[in-house]
Amino acid sequence: MALIVEKYGGTSVGSIERINAVADVVAQSVRNGDKMVIVVSAMSGETNRLIDLAKAISSRPMQREMDVLVSTGEQVTIALLAMALQEIGVPARSYTGFQVAIQTDSTHGKARIVNIESEHVLADLNTGSVVIIAGFQGVSSENNITTLGRGGSDTTAVAMAAALQADECRIFTDVDGVYTADPRVVEDARRLDRITFEEMLELSGAGAKVMQIRSVEFARKYNVPIRVLSSFRKGPGTLITNEEQPMEKPMISGITSAEDEAKVTVRGVPDRPGIAYSILGPISDAEIIVDMIVQNIGIDGLTDLTFTVHQEDLPKSMELLTPVVEGLGAEAIVGDTNLAKISAVGVGMRSHAGIATTMFHALSEKGINIQMISTSEIKISVTIDKEYAELAVRTLHKAFNLESIDTD
Amino acid sequence: MALIVEKYGGTSVGSIERINAVADVVAQSVRNGDKMVIVVSAMSGETNRLIDLAKAISSRPMQREMDVLVSTGEQVTIALLAMALQEIGVPARSYTGFQVAIQTDSTHGKARIVNIESEHVLADLNTGSVVIIAGFQGVSSENNITTLGRGGSDTTAVAMAAALQADECRIFTDVDGVYTADPRVVEDARRLDRITFEEMLELSGAGAKVMQIRSVEFARKYNVPIRVLSSFRKGPGTLITNEEQPMEKPMISGITSAEDEAKVTVRGVPDRPGIAYSILGPISDAEIIVDMIVQNIGIDGLTDLTFTVHQEDLPKSMELLTPVVEGLGAEAIVGDTNLAKISAVGVGMRSHAGIATTMFHALSEKGINIQMISTSEIKISVTIDKEYAELAVRTLHKAFNLESIDTD
Repeated sequence: MALIVEKYGGTSVGSIERINAVADVVAQSVRNGDKMVIVVSAMSGETNRLIDLAKAISSRPMQREMDVLVSTGEQVTIALLAMALQEIGVPARSYTGFQVAIQTDSTHGKARIVNIESEHVLADLNTGSVVIIAGFQGVSSENNITTLGRGGSDTTAVAMAAALQADECRIFTDVDGVYTADPRVVEDARRLDRITFEEMLELSGAGAKVMQIRSVEFARKYNVPIRVLSSFRKGPGTLITNEEQPMEKPMISGITSAEDEAKVTVRGVPDRPGIAYSILGPISDAEIIVDMIVQNIGIDGLTDLTFTVHQEDLPKSMELLTPVVEGLGAEAIVGDTNLAKISAVGVGMRSHAGIATTMFHALSEKGINIQMISTSEIKISVTIDKEYAELAVRTLHKAFNLESIDTD
Repeated sequence: MALIVEKYGGTSVGSIERINAVADVVAQSVRNGDKMVIVVSAMSGETNRLIDLAKAISSRPMQREMDVLVSTGEQVTIALLAMALQEIGVPARSYTGFQVAIQTDSTHGKARIVNIESEHVLADLNTGSVVIIAGFQGVSSENNITTLGRGGSDTTAVAMAAALQADECRIFTDVDGVYTADPRVVEDARRLDRITFEEMLELSGAGAKVMQIRSVEFARKYNVPIRVLSSFRKGPGTLITNEEQPMEKPMISGITSAEDEAKVTVRGVPDRPGIAYSILGPISDAEIIVDMIVQNIGIDGLTDLTFTVHQEDLPKSMELLTPVVEGLGAEAIVGDTNLAKISAVGVGMRSHAGIATTMFHALSEKGINIQMISTSEIKISVTIDKEYAELAVRTLHKAFNLESIDTD
């Protein structure tokens, strides 16, 4: 008898038929004796429908009210899934984020979980009930409804699994695991059977859409084993744990492309100490996540600073920096969305030299120009012109022989 | 500077345009210096959309989950209206029933308000913010989401007005006041300028759809003056207070027809003490509201007991009573939805004899057969065959000269 947390995304609960199918899967686990906690997203399309309503009223709706609005999406799903389970004889109770309570900070639209009160959920589980929890949402200390930002339902699932000390957290999605590259781009991309938290973290940060980066961080922090599975077809999925493969490990686990970032360049800044802080401080204060940061060596006492943010955050970043840049006496500030970030990720990278060489060589052979480079211990990322993104992923997948390496 | 609670129903907030129009009206009141609390329903059509989702899953969804589901409807509206006000420069904050908190008992789908914590709302009002509250919903002592049942948003508005000691509670709806009869049925029906709580109570109970009976009870109990207004066109509406008109009062204020009731008849019950209780006890335990009750004089030691319930409650009533009726040795139990309840209401009735005579005579002249009769101090109700409902209303409106009496 295990305690399992399962998360079903928007397409997995996108219709009444799909919700009934999820109920059948959950019922089977209950019959096997497992205690089940189910975290669900809004039915696919619903969140966008709600956002469109808001946009019809205001181009910049207050985030507090956006959270009140969009959190209804998951609330609808929890009620429907509870009904579907009850209909087939499985006791079930729904919980909003408010009801759990999933306590967060007050950053509307991007709140972070600070605590989970799990007593009520545990009590329900002990009476044999399936507990269904609205993903993506929480409640702040001021009693406001908050949302966790994109992919937040994954975070809810992992955080619940951590709070409940669950045996496994299963993320059901529309793909059947983590791949060496996006199978829609690279035909011979392979599903990985296992991957470490660290690798998954870098893959998520690098554009793999399977899981949100924060949920992987959470899982690593609390050592919650995650299994990524398809809710549409059976299969073992990909297990994400803190255990590295004991046997020969391939250098690279996957190639990703992120096309939702934007680049902000501050040109001709006087090159003196504290410049980076003056520019990035206001961005960070506004809770905007900065990904890559590159500063060139200054010529004639002037330097350029470039960083990337999510495309959604570009208008606000430009607005915040315009007065700052003027104050610094910089030449110009330029925003640009025409870029893709291509990354190669793998724990094997640590012990193998030459990964960067292979990567840069392969790209140059296809005539792809590299704009920015950023590296971590187990990842190399470059930004390139957006139109070369798919070509770059296919080129690197081949250059690292990812189609043929068996990771089992 | 007054404290005003306003309630806008589903059609009044049925589209983005309508929500913006409501925001404009509210903004005007704020500019006049009034403190505004706005209670809203779900956008028209939304509640039915949600109910249809539930019905696609289960023919008898658990009420707890139904409340979780349908309460999202109002939550969407509060967020959108708050955004609409913010967009035109009026500070506004939304509150779900949970957040206020509007504490109710645990009768899902038909919960009763037991307490309102109004501190947060008052604090917001004092900072100059408009407070927008989701109607129809509350939270039970077990932390469950509850709903107040049909027309519950009116109850929310009146209860908030009572809790906040508001100067006036305005109910904006799709009609511009309380009429002597349904204007769609009786062409020369007149809008009443004033009416007492008592009359409104009887009119609501008798089928006038303007306000829910519970909200009128609440208003009378806490003496909250209510004004019923149209959100589509300007006008003084109808003021509902506890003050009777000092001048000559017409005998009858209005004629109503209720066509959403059903009749349950238990035939051939042994006529002994406690029979009514045995039959109506289980109905009342199930929180089903019984309207008219008629028991005929017994013949041969057997009697018939007939009562009316809301049509929605008929299947459950029949299910509950089938074993009871068997246990009592009664002959049969019969459910029937083919009836309309026609009522004449007016405080003037108290001092005038002959109302019943006029009523029964007028109906008989049109060949309309009376099934059941029930009377209160200020109301006479009869049930008739449903197909005569409109004819009966027109006939009685004319019989009591309601088209010509000036109540101003």
